[in-house]
Amino acid sequence: MSITTEQMRFWSPEVRELEPYVPGEQPKIQNLLKLNTNENPYPPSPKVVEAVQAVLVDSADALRLYPDPDASALKQAIAKQQNVALENVFVGNGSDEVLAHIFKAFFVQDKPILYPDITYSFYPVYSQFFGVKTKVLPLNDAFEIVVDDYKQANGGIIITNPNAPTSIALGLQAIEEVLQANPDSVVVIDEAYVDFGAESAVKLVEKYENLVVCQTTSKSRSLAGLRVGFAIAQPHLIAALEAVKNSFNSYPMDRFAIAAAVASFEDQTYFEQQCEKVIRSREKLVNELQEIGFVVLPSKANFIFASLPNKDAGELAAELRACGIIVRYFNKPRINQFLRITIGTDEQNQRLVETLKQDILA
Amino acid sequence: MSITTEQMRFWSPEVRELEPYVPGEQPKIQNLLKLNTNENPYPPSPKVVEAVQAVLVDSADALRLYPDPDASALKQAIAKQQNVALENVFVGNGSDEVLAHIFKAFFVQDKPILYPDITYSFYPVYSQFFGVKTKVLPLNDAFEIVVDDYKQANGGIIITNPNAPTSIALGLQAIEEVLQANPDSVVVIDEAYVDFGAESAVKLVEKYENLVVCQTTSKSRSLAGLRVGFAIAQPHLIAALEAVKNSFNSYPMDRFAIAAAVASFEDQTYFEQQCEKVIRSREKLVNELQEIGFVVLPSKANFIFASLPNKDAGELAAELRACGIIVRYFNKPRINQFLRITIGTDEQNQRLVETLKQDILA
Repeated sequence: MSITTEQMRFWSPEVRELEPYVPGEQPKIQNLLKLNTNENPYPPSPKVVEAVQAVLVDSADALRLYPDPDASALKQAIAKQQNVALENVFVGNGSDEVLAHIFKAFFVQDKPILYPDITYSFYPVYSQFFGVKTKVLPLNDAFEIVVDDYKQANGGIIITNPNAPTSIALGLQAIEEVLQANPDSVVVIDEAYVDFGAESAVKLVEKYENLVVCQTTSKSRSLAGLRVGFAIAQPHLIAALEAVKNSFNSYPMDRFAIAAAVASFEDQTYFEQQCEKVIRSREKLVNELQEIGFVVLPSKANFIFASLPNKDAGELAAELRACGIIVRYFNKPRINQFLRITIGTDEQNQRLVETLKQDILA
Repeated sequence: MSITTEQMRFWSPEVRELEPYVPGEQPKIQNLLKLNTNENPYPPSPKVVEAVQAVLVDSADALRLYPDPDASALKQAIAKQQNVALENVFVGNGSDEVLAHIFKAFFVQDKPILYPDITYSFYPVYSQFFGVKTKVLPLNDAFEIVVDDYKQANGGIIITNPNAPTSIALGLQAIEEVLQANPDSVVVIDEAYVDFGAESAVKLVEKYENLVVCQTTSKSRSLAGLRVGFAIAQPHLIAALEAVKNSFNSYPMDRFAIAAAVASFEDQTYFEQQCEKVIRSREKLVNELQEIGFVVLPSKANFIFASLPNKDAGELAAELRACGIIVRYFNKPRINQFLRITIGTDEQNQRLVETLKQDILA
């Protein structure tokens, strides 16, 4: 649709300049192998389905009434699972909403925030949306974060760990170095993929008054369809997030999302088993891709970032797509020869490897 | 919790000044008669429960995968029910989120937006949140909007119709007068309560390029527990809302909310029957309260705004609460002698009337 200059007069001037985020596609094609948006190949805990059914049994009152605006039951379940206090937990409608609130709550400062050149591509979008100044710091040639770069004046820091789309994790010692070097800035560790082998910074929350850890139920808990994210921090930081949330939307979490996510956090065994399965499948897939000749960055996530020397990554993505397999390709400087491939089941990964071997590289 | 000045240094300066919205309380007390947050006393269509159950049957893939970021199925159902095109529909996580996006998309202007002094108390909150200038215009002594006041220079206009908490509706002729007097401003008609007897401005959308109509499923469709709101406007205005939404959260609508709301919009008969029941109960309750001596403003909503001469409204609210009935009391200038009372079932309303007669005013 084209919008005329005359029609544009109705838009807020700053909104005319926005460059929105573009999510990975959600095609409605049958038999497609979808390895493009880092979803979990396994369903959520069966207890999740039971919990939603329980809401339905009591549906008369459950649906006509507003949900708890504080989603206290969910905060309690998260606090218990994460081994923190209730007052350390903030919840939102997916970790994207939690991140948006984080940008507003902490990063609208005189000085710019710092983040890597290759990372979650929603950060520049939030920054523009809320008028946050940014200073982008290049990863090194091995696609690693250079910790010393994060010791300059700033209005906040955000680091995805493991980073996306690189899949590389930073150790807690490096994170502590960043926290200690920035006692007056909020340091956000975005742990969307942490459950697949990286070490969480949640255990540092008690020690650092400037730390916010953000996580999601969309990947490791197989609840992408539900939209539940959360942040863990000391209470004086949680209070800022609550002030922002209550100035935007009082009731962001619906009754099904609350009930389902609670059930997921209460089923730790299932959660750990599924994460283990994904990790094992990842190691197997990495080996097989390396055998074909792929260069694969060391992954602690439920995806890998891989490059095939002497083969254009954009072309490869298109050829895979023609064979019914979608992976994520970013046509951006430095990473336009890589593919981000979500870890599927062993059977799905096998289909990918066989397709590469037999149909594309044969 | 008290936050020290030192801890406050982590907050964005503008967030330190926020005065968040305070929603009506959601007490977890049994046997309470809850007439304070304008929920529907009847459950949603049985088809809603069936739709959620259908999602669960296919739960493996339904929950682990991201929902459609555009919620196209929901937009289609709304378009059909509202008799507009798909491109006229925007959806969000409750109408509060839709309103927040509206403020950002249209109202961040040099000139102030206009709204009444007595209206939805989230408007000043959004304004502060997004840095929107405001000019507040008093309702007249009968608590009606003075249309001529809305013919001065402005950066946008927002009118709740029927207004809350007054319950009084404005006719479409008056709304057209406002639209015509403001060809360069976006005029938002917030119709959260329109289905209980007022006339919707949706039919004016085709004619006015500056009109946005906002509605919710929380009241007339008994889906407060789900968080689904929407806006109807011409495509050049919908595009601004999409740009804002996609700069904030790509997937605001979860799979259950989409499926459930679609089912609700497809069951028009049930919807109309429930609205009719609430309207009949309202008329009955108004008569009975007037017999006791209440002054009740003329309501086109699922609540009434009522005052009892020679009885302090704050005290009355407290006495009702002591009898297990919660109504909404706003301790604000001009309206601190009124109670906002949600319409319940006939039985619930009878309990209210009997309690007033026998326990409080006897």
